[in-house]
Amino acid sequence: MAEKPKKPSKLRARLPRGLADRGPAEIAATRAMVEKIREVYERYGFEPVETPAFEYTDALGKFLPDQDRPNEGVFSLQDDDEQWISLRYDLTAPLARYVAENFDALPKPYRSYRFGWVFRNEKPGPGRFRQFMQFDADTVGAPTAAADAEMCMMAADTMEALGIPRGSYVVKVNNRKIFDGIIDSIAGDSSPMRRLIILRAIDKADKFPPNEIRKLLGQGRLDESGDFTAGALLDPDQIERIMRLLAPAWPIERLVSFHSRHFSRFHTARKYAHFLMEFFGIRSFSPLLLGALDEIEQLHQLFRQAGYDEDRIRIDPSVVRGLEYYTGPVYEVELLLDTKDEKGRPVRFGSVGGGGRYDGLVSRFRGEPVPATGFSIGVSRLQAALTLIGQLDNKPQPGPVVVTVFGGDIAGYQKMVATLRSAGIRAELYLGNPKHSLGQQMKYADKRNSPCAVIQGSDEKQQGIVQIKDLILGAELASLEKDRDEYLKKQAEAQFSCKEDELVAKVQELLQRRGVSWN
Amino acid sequence: MAEKPKKPSKLRARLPRGLADRGPAEIAATRAMVEKIREVYERYGFEPVETPAFEYTDALGKFLPDQDRPNEGVFSLQDDDEQWISLRYDLTAPLARYVAENFDALPKPYRSYRFGWVFRNEKPGPGRFRQFMQFDADTVGAPTAAADAEMCMMAADTMEALGIPRGSYVVKVNNRKIFDGIIDSIAGDSSPMRRLIILRAIDKADKFPPNEIRKLLGQGRLDESGDFTAGALLDPDQIERIMRLLAPAWPIERLVSFHSRHFSRFHTARKYAHFLMEFFGIRSFSPLLLGALDEIEQLHQLFRQAGYDEDRIRIDPSVVRGLEYYTGPVYEVELLLDTKDEKGRPVRFGSVGGGGRYDGLVSRFRGEPVPATGFSIGVSRLQAALTLIGQLDNKPQPGPVVVTVFGGDIAGYQKMVATLRSAGIRAELYLGNPKHSLGQQMKYADKRNSPCAVIQGSDEKQQGIVQIKDLILGAELASLEKDRDEYLKKQAEAQFSCKEDELVAKVQELLQRRGVSWN
Repeated sequence: MAEKPKKPSKLRARLPRGLADRGPAEIAATRAMVEKIREVYERYGFEPVETPAFEYTDALGKFLPDQDRPNEGVFSLQDDDEQWISLRYDLTAPLARYVAENFDALPKPYRSYRFGWVFRNEKPGPGRFRQFMQFDADTVGAPTAAADAEMCMMAADTMEALGIPRGSYVVKVNNRKIFDGIIDSIAGDSSPMRRLIILRAIDKADKFPPNEIRKLLGQGRLDESGDFTAGALLDPDQIERIMRLLAPAWPIERLVSFHSRHFSRFHTARKYAHFLMEFFGIRSFSPLLLGALDEIEQLHQLFRQAGYDEDRIRIDPSVVRGLEYYTGPVYEVELLLDTKDEKGRPVRFGSVGGGGRYDGLVSRFRGEPVPATGFSIGVSRLQAALTLIGQLDNKPQPGPVVVTVFGGDIAGYQKMVATLRSAGIRAELYLGNPKHSLGQQMKYADKRNSPCAVIQGSDEKQQGIVQIKDLILGAELASLEKDRDEYLKKQAEAQFSCKEDELVAKVQELLQRRGVSWN
Repeated sequence: MAEKPKKPSKLRARLPRGLADRGPAEIAATRAMVEKIREVYERYGFEPVETPAFEYTDALGKFLPDQDRPNEGVFSLQDDDEQWISLRYDLTAPLARYVAENFDALPKPYRSYRFGWVFRNEKPGPGRFRQFMQFDADTVGAPTAAADAEMCMMAADTMEALGIPRGSYVVKVNNRKIFDGIIDSIAGDSSPMRRLIILRAIDKADKFPPNEIRKLLGQGRLDESGDFTAGALLDPDQIERIMRLLAPAWPIERLVSFHSRHFSRFHTARKYAHFLMEFFGIRSFSPLLLGALDEIEQLHQLFRQAGYDEDRIRIDPSVVRGLEYYTGPVYEVELLLDTKDEKGRPVRFGSVGGGGRYDGLVSRFRGEPVPATGFSIGVSRLQAALTLIGQLDNKPQPGPVVVTVFGGDIAGYQKMVATLRSAGIRAELYLGNPKHSLGQQMKYADKRNSPCAVIQGSDEKQQGIVQIKDLILGAELASLEKDRDEYLKKQAEAQFSCKEDELVAKVQELLQRRGVSWN
């Protein structure tokens, strides 16, 4: 009796954490959205390609969230030939593998897009899932800033195609080399390893308090378990200047206060340089930093000359984007809408997608430089935003016409259903227990959101007629009870009979009257 | 030096076995197909629902290919709370879990459909993948044969909606209880465990020679490794009668020879009973068998009365369908086309989908009976069939208009591209190295299957004009070389100039002339 009770033999129906089912309204909304994105991408000359859910784990390597623990964050298992395979963590790593594998057959530059599920074996939370959908576009084999600029312009066009008004979104552009350049300017020319240690320390800012980050930038950090992480060996003054990257200031607000005079037109390399000098105390610019500023200037020119102004695409030093594999320009789409959630609380949307240049990824397979730049939309996040601003219809579509049944001989009813369907009308036979009362069957039709029900008892059958019950009007009747005349008139309209062979025509009239159509 | 050479640092770009990438033509064909299936299912009143790729392994339980080895055949891994989770093996088990979890909120009967990837951790082979797409429809909570009949009729309608002509497909229907009844009639009333041992023995027919199957039906079987599998303890006469289920005869051909007189109209319960008596030597019919024959008769009547004749849906005793979880009617869609593959070899298509009644699956979670019936299409297989009979366009769609570039200042070219795109024309800027020659850029346009290219050198730029090169006509020129006059005339037509502001209009004219449109 002291033992734990045994598991009951009845299974519990539930999903593992961080996974979700999707109903009709959500599925329809995703469909509509994906179609609009596809249309823009196709117009830009991108073509679809799809890869499977699994890749060899080593092919994902560089994309893993934490290189120290290569199986952390991804779902991995050992194949029966002993090799490790993993569910894709994003759509970029599989594309890099695909391009490398089919390099000679593909046109170069190679513009492609794809959408699909990706998997992360991370702690789920509110709005944070272990399976979610991404929609990516990438250009491989294009070395110039024009390819990055095209991505940003396509992102802007996509937002407008989805119904997000100009001024309610902005594509923000920065350059990852700026970070490397800042680090070099502060810490002196650094080895890639030292830069990585510094970037990783910065990346831990959401987990550790500032003083722990300072340890990682300095002599290293000993954690509670006794593990020691080597530090970047910066001196206290250098540490404080790097720490400015972590200031809550960095995202927008403090930039504005720093640059109130310039910020509204904060977009040229010269102004960016000025900002770096003031904010980080950088006096001399390394070749790396100068190169990055030059790319910033090129991008700026390309946007303006193609007619994409500051209100659509702008240079913004606050954009960081992932720390590992970007090698040049990085970009992020932010929704500026302040909107309210279902409970009326204000919601600021923030980033719905982003990307950047990753010149090193395809090269890993090829042993030769293969420049690439890509952009990824978080479909679920964007869908939530579009739903909130009313750009996605989240209402379920009307249900089918329900043909009710009486008695065991259902062949006649089934024929009616077949006739309605042949006329393109969404229709179904009541398939519950045929002995269910009309009341039970009508309750079902209501639950199905049916526009009307078809009824034929034995009397009607003998006379060769059917009853049609208008369920939309029926629902309105409830609110009309006070006005007796109106009520009685509508009540007569809400259920009427017709000959069997008029069924299709009468149902079609009713559907038209009530504005019902299916897509 | 005796050690194996170390793995080279360059990664090999390749996919794990049994997985495949998909290009534009294949993706477009799936899209077109899935849309047509959706349309039929929606008209039948089915609504979409989607479940994630993972389920708890115990929720998949009954669907596993081999209950003795529950992790064989599926991709499973242990979650960080120690519970086992698996990638879905089909779309039926997840639906059963979904319905059980949302039972009170769903209308009942609940008609739903879904399509998506499923995963099998099995030995891949030609045309056998470890990730493939299924398209399922299920009705849960419908106890009568009318629900099974509806599935079969919907399957038939779907085939025709996909362009498969009547007479080139057939939906074949049988009843799983017939097998149980045959076993009972031969072996006496059997326990479910004995039936299971017999069914499993039958299921091994593709792996073991007949004498090994006989052992499994009799005293049991000792394999090479020394493992003993308990047998069904049938006597030799019973074993031989059960073995008829395994005769190559069972699929069609021998049935025909047995029943040459009846087979063409082999569809009523009476005839089915007659067949069972002759083929299996069954003289007395158990209540189970009588019940199954009664269901067969009901289905037959429903098909005929709804106007689905023998050429579309027929009763066929050769249909078995999975051995584990079906509890009543089972059905299978077979393509009757004899067609040829890419190499001109004849191909007979066979089954492209099937399903049946599975009254036990949802009940596992609910502890109360929940009848259900469902149908699954193997999307990839059906797609291969449709491609072979020319019902799916597998040609890549036309590429974009390519705007070529000269020199470093590409802003002007980019603007042309933006103008073409705004007019709805699929267009792109050449994004390769801007120093590439016109020849290299035209080669790219050819590889992209572009209808035309736009060219503006520095002379044209000064004059405010552009050259438009008709690549479709250009390709035709090659075959016209013999006719000099025709050649010269067409050559002039194949490249012409226009003013910069006429670009959109001229390109639109050209696209119309060449019949180019994008979908």
